[in-house]
Amino acid sequence: MSAGVQRIALGVAYRGNAYRGWQSQPGGGTVQDALQQALSRFADTPIEVHCAGRTDAGVHAFNQVVHLDSPVSREPFSWLRGTNRYLPHDIGLQWCQPVEADFHARFSAIGRRYRYLLLESPLRPSLEAGQVGWTFRPLDGEAMRAGAAHLIGEHDFSSFRSAECQARSPVKTLRAISMAYRGEPERGYWRFDFDGSAFLHHMVRNIMGCLVTIGAGRQPPGWMAEVLAARSRDAAAPTFAADGLYFAGADYDARHGIPIHTPAMDWFP
Amino acid sequence: MSAGVQRIALGVAYRGNAYRGWQSQPGGGTVQDALQQALSRFADTPIEVHCAGRTDAGVHAFNQVVHLDSPVSREPFSWLRGTNRYLPHDIGLQWCQPVEADFHARFSAIGRRYRYLLLESPLRPSLEAGQVGWTFRPLDGEAMRAGAAHLIGEHDFSSFRSAECQARSPVKTLRAISMAYRGEPERGYWRFDFDGSAFLHHMVRNIMGCLVTIGAGRQPPGWMAEVLAARSRDAAAPTFAADGLYFAGADYDARHGIPIHTPAMDWFP
Repeated sequence: MSAGVQRIALGVAYRGNAYRGWQSQPGGGTVQDALQQALSRFADTPIEVHCAGRTDAGVHAFNQVVHLDSPVSREPFSWLRGTNRYLPHDIGLQWCQPVEADFHARFSAIGRRYRYLLLESPLRPSLEAGQVGWTFRPLDGEAMRAGAAHLIGEHDFSSFRSAECQARSPVKTLRAISMAYRGEPERGYWRFDFDGSAFLHHMVRNIMGCLVTIGAGRQPPGWMAEVLAARSRDAAAPTFAADGLYFAGADYDARHGIPIHTPAMDWFP
Repeated sequence: MSAGVQRIALGVAYRGNAYRGWQSQPGGGTVQDALQQALSRFADTPIEVHCAGRTDAGVHAFNQVVHLDSPVSREPFSWLRGTNRYLPHDIGLQWCQPVEADFHARFSAIGRRYRYLLLESPLRPSLEAGQVGWTFRPLDGEAMRAGAAHLIGEHDFSSFRSAECQARSPVKTLRAISMAYRGEPERGYWRFDFDGSAFLHHMVRNIMGCLVTIGAGRQPPGWMAEVLAARSRDAAAPTFAADGLYFAGADYDARHGIPIHTPAMDWFP
């Protein structure tokens, strides 16, 4: 990093429905493209960003973490307000933190969190379409918790990894999967919170597919251990919908001063 | 109502952003147009609906109540699943209840409820764009509650009525305005719940404009009484954004058997 260059970290929230995922593509139309364009326009110089966790098409973020190197110096709130002016209405900066040159949104992250929101109802989503997954089968929370327990810890998650996954190793540590339900019987919303070191491509959606299979009673909880042990994508359930998936945040060593942003508002208490 | 005709009531949820409001228009593009098309396609005969409370462009509904007369007889769940198949993804039926011939979604309603969701933050909405209103000024809940208290009861609400309002009388009964805040100081979400006999055109949005004016300290709570007493639209604050407004439900005499649908999921616990 050359002298005069300022490294800053930013928190970004977005609704992913209108985008071709996070990562910049030649034809544009991604969240990263929109963000880099807005930042470059505000800073009046080309700006490139790196993120904590790339998201697929249709996946949302409460708190994506990115960093950038800027040749221009601006106050944190100026970055926020100035960039938001040039961003589409469904993408917005949430916080801005100057960081040391050794901070990297992706490589410094010691944890990532995802949330999945799922409507359980005989009837499909409408007001919340594109923002929740959907199951018309009632789910058994105890069965899902028992199934999820098999995944906690350090494991080879090859069974939950998409063919396109570029991660060097399929071994990741899943620290917790917590779940809660709110609503009436057979008409309510599930919230699943995933906390881990890092996640493979489609890992959360593939785990969700297996949890819903168990919750609906089509497989016993112990089936999750078999799927994990198989280390083969063929063993798992189909990839669950992107609609209800949110990148919830990334964790860093406290010395970096990155805010722990907990979304206050979501579709679920 | 002729013999063989079945009157049914339906609950409808929708996200209003893509529509020109509730009421059918020659050019189409309204929620009523989409709903009537889907119902007619399912019933294979022209179906017209009447609603409990018309909503403006960009306004949403957790539970709009409508009724229709159908020459064909179908099971309630068949209406729901069959019609939802033909509805756009952001409109969906929630429940179906056969009713007596004297039930009318609008004229039988003895109460209506609206909810307004408001982001208080220095930064505009993004993930929740179009689904919440926004204020960058911190709001004083006690001042707003004191202001709102002046509106409770039966009053002439002409000051909160749009020029286009077609209601016969500006006298309505407002039973309650409740409010709650969740989040951090200066970064959270307000929920306002309005319960009344009926509402004039733009009444909730005009009251919201005044409440935010009081909450931001630009007028004292007692100003609300002055606005009400003026019986003139010129006395009130500008109409607040449609984005955060939701038709939450309508109330009927219990003999009609209409479900009291309380939205389990919203942007706020």
